[in-house]
Amino acid sequence: MPAPYTLILLRHGQSLWNQQNLFTGWVDVRLSEQGIIEARRAGELIAESGLLPDVVHTSVLTRAIQTADLALEQANRSWIDVKRSWRLNERHYGALQGLDKAETLEKFGPEQFQLWRRSYDVPPPVLADDSKWSQVSDPRYAGLGDAVPRTECLKDVVERMLPYWESDIAADLRGGKIVLVTAHGNSLRALVKHLDGISDADIAELNIPTGIPLVYRLGEDLMPLGPGEYLDPEAAAAGAAAVAAQGKK
Amino acid sequence: MPAPYTLILLRHGQSLWNQQNLFTGWVDVRLSEQGIIEARRAGELIAESGLLPDVVHTSVLTRAIQTADLALEQANRSWIDVKRSWRLNERHYGALQGLDKAETLEKFGPEQFQLWRRSYDVPPPVLADDSKWSQVSDPRYAGLGDAVPRTECLKDVVERMLPYWESDIAADLRGGKIVLVTAHGNSLRALVKHLDGISDADIAELNIPTGIPLVYRLGEDLMPLGPGEYLDPEAAAAGAAAVAAQGKK
Repeated sequence: MPAPYTLILLRHGQSLWNQQNLFTGWVDVRLSEQGIIEARRAGELIAESGLLPDVVHTSVLTRAIQTADLALEQANRSWIDVKRSWRLNERHYGALQGLDKAETLEKFGPEQFQLWRRSYDVPPPVLADDSKWSQVSDPRYAGLGDAVPRTECLKDVVERMLPYWESDIAADLRGGKIVLVTAHGNSLRALVKHLDGISDADIAELNIPTGIPLVYRLGEDLMPLGPGEYLDPEAAAAGAAAVAAQGKK
Repeated sequence: MPAPYTLILLRHGQSLWNQQNLFTGWVDVRLSEQGIIEARRAGELIAESGLLPDVVHTSVLTRAIQTADLALEQANRSWIDVKRSWRLNERHYGALQGLDKAETLEKFGPEQFQLWRRSYDVPPPVLADDSKWSQVSDPRYAGLGDAVPRTECLKDVVERMLPYWESDIAADLRGGKIVLVTAHGNSLRALVKHLDGISDADIAELNIPTGIPLVYRLGEDLMPLGPGEYLDPEAAAAGAAAVAAQGKK
């Protein structure tokens, strides 16, 4: 099918750990009540836009899967094709997984905190395999063997996410399908970095709000024909500001 | 992977129209509260059995998709691969879709009623394309063109279901995956007819209860090594009796 192609990005709604201000990463936390409401609202926005997805790609984390299920249900599109990949997972937050963001900020100071959260290539310390927050024994990653991450920086996320973009997502887009990608703050930042050609330095400033669909029109080369557009721009601006403020008590 | 292979069949929980005793067919009705409870219970049974699905195949009808989502969530397997096909849909009930079962029984008499419900090759009258219960304009069947059913007998269901069994489901089984098929009374009767070699006459007597996983072990030829086993045999017997009694007020 000829371009333009339509891509919709959706960050999962608030999770129980977002609510409690904990670093989550690959820990499989469910949506909060607010997150459920956000996911349904995202589905309404998609239905109202008339941009009805033909296929949804999700991470293998429950909060993204719940968000996709709820949004598609709301848009009466539960029946579309579904594909899942760990490559769309949130960044693995290493030894920070399970820690309180505000306490971490207090303990390590704002410079180190911001380095871990927003630097492009500095991962947090590795998470021990015997930690209760480790994923080394999680059956959903059995296929990865010992390559299950123990920590990741955003650069790592870009490197493991892009192959999936180039194979699976690209194939659906070129097939003329409207593609919904339901994923996470950092896997979507990685994708937007690629699409919008954002530098390693500038990506630190990009915050993606939860639960607001972000629509791109792509050309033959699968690069954007214009800026991505949120389906609810006002809510998106407020949401991005809230993400930026995280870690503050 | 060598046999035995594991197949789990699951009929969706009670829908709003099951509850109201209406013929449903391809009308896209949601689960009732009881159906939601049944789906979660099915997930518990699956988790307790230790037979954890690696992939789920569903119809494109919401009640089967909801059932799969709820059961897998309960079994902590929301992240497995998902495949959907209209070939797993319920039988299209033709002009009976939307009618009350008890009223239909009264109007047409027990002989005609039982013929439509349980004969192998007598479909109900066709549903008019301008009926509010028709699926000819439903976007999920756009790919079928004018082949969208207007009515089906069980033989029709067997004929459209088996190609999907032989291609997609068989491939997953041969790959060594534990396969969950979440579908409907008649698409599962069609599959069980094939697996258990039930005659066109005897299939009339087979009733599959809602919400109880039915497990088959299959050999290299993808035929059963023994009888299918319900994960909760007592509940299954009670459920099958309830299905057989449908249509009675």
